[in-house]
Amino acid sequence: ISSKLPNVGTTIFTVMSKLASDCGAINLSQGFPGFDCDPALLDLVTQYMNAGHNQYAPMSGVPILRERIVGKTKFIHGIDLDSENEVTVVSGATEALYAAVTAVVKLGDEVILFDPAYDSYAPAVELNGGIPVYVPLEMPDFSVNWERVKSAITAKTRLIMVNTPHNPSGYVWTKEDLASLADLIQDKDILVISDEVYEHITFDGRKHLSLLTHSLLRSRTFVCCSFGKTFHVTGWKIGYCLAPPQLTAEFRKVHQFLTFSTATPMQYALAEYLSEPSLYFELPDFYQKKRDLFCEGLKETPFEFTPAQGSFFQMVSYGHLSDESDYDLAVRLTKEIGVASIPISVFFSDKKDHKILRFCFAKNDLDLASALDKLIYFK
Amino acid sequence: ISSKLPNVGTTIFTVMSKLASDCGAINLSQGFPGFDCDPALLDLVTQYMNAGHNQYAPMSGVPILRERIVGKTKFIHGIDLDSENEVTVVSGATEALYAAVTAVVKLGDEVILFDPAYDSYAPAVELNGGIPVYVPLEMPDFSVNWERVKSAITAKTRLIMVNTPHNPSGYVWTKEDLASLADLIQDKDILVISDEVYEHITFDGRKHLSLLTHSLLRSRTFVCCSFGKTFHVTGWKIGYCLAPPQLTAEFRKVHQFLTFSTATPMQYALAEYLSEPSLYFELPDFYQKKRDLFCEGLKETPFEFTPAQGSFFQMVSYGHLSDESDYDLAVRLTKEIGVASIPISVFFSDKKDHKILRFCFAKNDLDLASALDKLIYFK
Ligand SMILES: CSCCC(=O)C(=O)O
Ligand SMILES: CSCCC(=O)C(=O)O
Repeated sequence: ISSKLPNVGTTIFTVMSKLASDCGAINLSQGFPGFDCDPALLDLVTQYMNAGHNQYAPMSGVPILRERIVGKTKFIHGIDLDSENEVTVVSGATEALYAAVTAVVKLGDEVILFDPAYDSYAPAVELNGGIPVYVPLEMPDFSVNWERVKSAITAKTRLIMVNTPHNPSGYVWTKEDLASLADLIQDKDILVISDEVYEHITFDGRKHLSLLTHSLLRSRTFVCCSFGKTFHVTGWKIGYCLAPPQLTAEFRKVHQFLTFSTATPMQYALAEYLSEPSLYFELPDFYQKKRDLFCEGLKETPFEFTPAQGSFFQMVSYGHLSDESDYDLAVRLTKEIGVASIPISVFFSDKKDHKILRFCFAKNDLDLASALDKLIYFK
Repeated sequence: ISSKLPNVGTTIFTVMSKLASDCGAINLSQGFPGFDCDPALLDLVTQYMNAGHNQYAPMSGVPILRERIVGKTKFIHGIDLDSENEVTVVSGATEALYAAVTAVVKLGDEVILFDPAYDSYAPAVELNGGIPVYVPLEMPDFSVNWERVKSAITAKTRLIMVNTPHNPSGYVWTKEDLASLADLIQDKDILVISDEVYEHITFDGRKHLSLLTHSLLRSRTFVCCSFGKTFHVTGWKIGYCLAPPQLTAEFRKVHQFLTFSTATPMQYALAEYLSEPSLYFELPDFYQKKRDLFCEGLKETPFEFTPAQGSFFQMVSYGHLSDESDYDLAVRLTKEIGVASIPISVFFSDKKDHKILRFCFAKNDLDLASALDKLIYFK
């Protein structure tokens, strides 16, 4: 059979996590916490399972969880959403992204992707008959050059896919970024998908600006969020999509045929857990300590870096030291030194090697410390 | 925005379950068990969660669960599968169906659907640019007329979607059905998706014949199965897809961007639970008792019916009694008599009313008995 995704192989996350495990290396590659979630959250799942909440949840999510999401959005952004018509619980942000793309992209539509981008965006667009149009981010900080975005827009542009805080760079969108985007699309028939899975992980007092906080953008955007990234349960595959009623209606039409609904006991457990929305405020501090610990240690290594603005990833450059490709280096560091990372070339549309590795610092402090001890020996 | 699925509204399952709950009616509409699963399975989830299995599972599923699926297939069908390359764990059979369609259907491809069909098939085909071609099943038993299938095949036919045991009718494919399908496609470039979520629920000594058991079909088919339907945990959204290596490779390319992976603690729990594959043998008996109880009671009502061959659904006809549309009757029975059902017109491509309702008998015996007590009053 002829493949619809001829260029897609096994994801780098699978490749590097497997290599790390085969080599007994410390796995700073795939983005997931190396520690467990609050045991209270696990107890709640047990409680709801034992109380018999094991059959289909409503397609759009259990009502109390959708209400808690509305509560959080009010608490954090001061924005009122309608839990009936603007919130849909899904099987992870990956499903949210795929369903949103499927809901709006038609054959021949152009979709603007910032380059580098998370690896699921382009295949989602292509499987729906859309055409990815890449706008390179500015090096070295991975900020957006709005002139370039403007030139990329054509009559066929249907969608722009945003990611803030950005994976792999950690770049956090500014008020000016939001205003520039709104400016560019306001007179056009262009929608937005905003991947905000690292919304609660920003540093040095920087605030995540959800696209929801801008009224024009809010009327055009599917905001995709993740409980897995936020509460250290990436394996539960639960997230949600926020969008205005008309977009939510189209999103749900797709979601109901993609997965229909999402694990019921986890939905009830998260709803009860979130009765205290101030939980969200602990996250930036928690991760800032890890970023600082990791960056402090990196200073003892020959890598060059600028501390990440957000996300739980830290990029490092080594072009001043070696010509080795980032993929080869990532493999070599895993095998020889025992620390796995992600070569960021995989995130670029042209797979260009920028001599940059990405380390995930969502790990126990002890693991971070031993990884740093090992990285000193990188030459 | 203009909808990509203009004809899709809220699914009938959502509509009827909500109406049942609003009216305090016994819900025999949406297909999910009215009883809970084995508590041992819940304890296993708790155990694996507490042991820290809460981060991403491997994209294709945790290895031990894939091996247990291979063990089951060997035990039940005597067939050896390769757990590395032929088994993928997904977020429910709905995802399996959607991912398989997405993996193979290209723009303009024709896909043969038997009519009536489960409501997710046609939208999955259409969202991928395919064209559903409907072959009506034969009334009154919903068997396949192979001459009709033959005439529906064209040079553009890419895929045939099979469902055995069939929802909503319960029809179970025979050896002759498998042979006829193989005969028709053997010289053609046609693949098959087989929805076998009710594989363990067949009656009166009838055996489910998986398409896996036919060697030519096995080489062309994505078999979609459900742990939710089998172990009474529809709300966990966990199922799997069995397909030969080349098809599995394409399936996984899509799955990794649709949901990436599926709830880790549930995967480990099911793997351990399945160390005893004879568990599967209890199911037909368990459900046969319920079907018999329900059909015995139906004899006291004015409905006409033939006991279902498989699945946990029983259809009943009322055309000899009334001209009321099946939708109106389903709503009226819910409101006035307190029993919710599914009007099967929704499963037909032309929504034609055949004066047939579908009742789900996967409920506690007490609920079935009170539903039957109420149905006597139907006039
Ligand atoms: C779905 S596996 C990848 C996790 C992730 O977001 C990352 O490592 O970038
Ligand atoms: C996904 S909700 C529908 C459940 C079901 O299979 C049915 O009722 O036919």
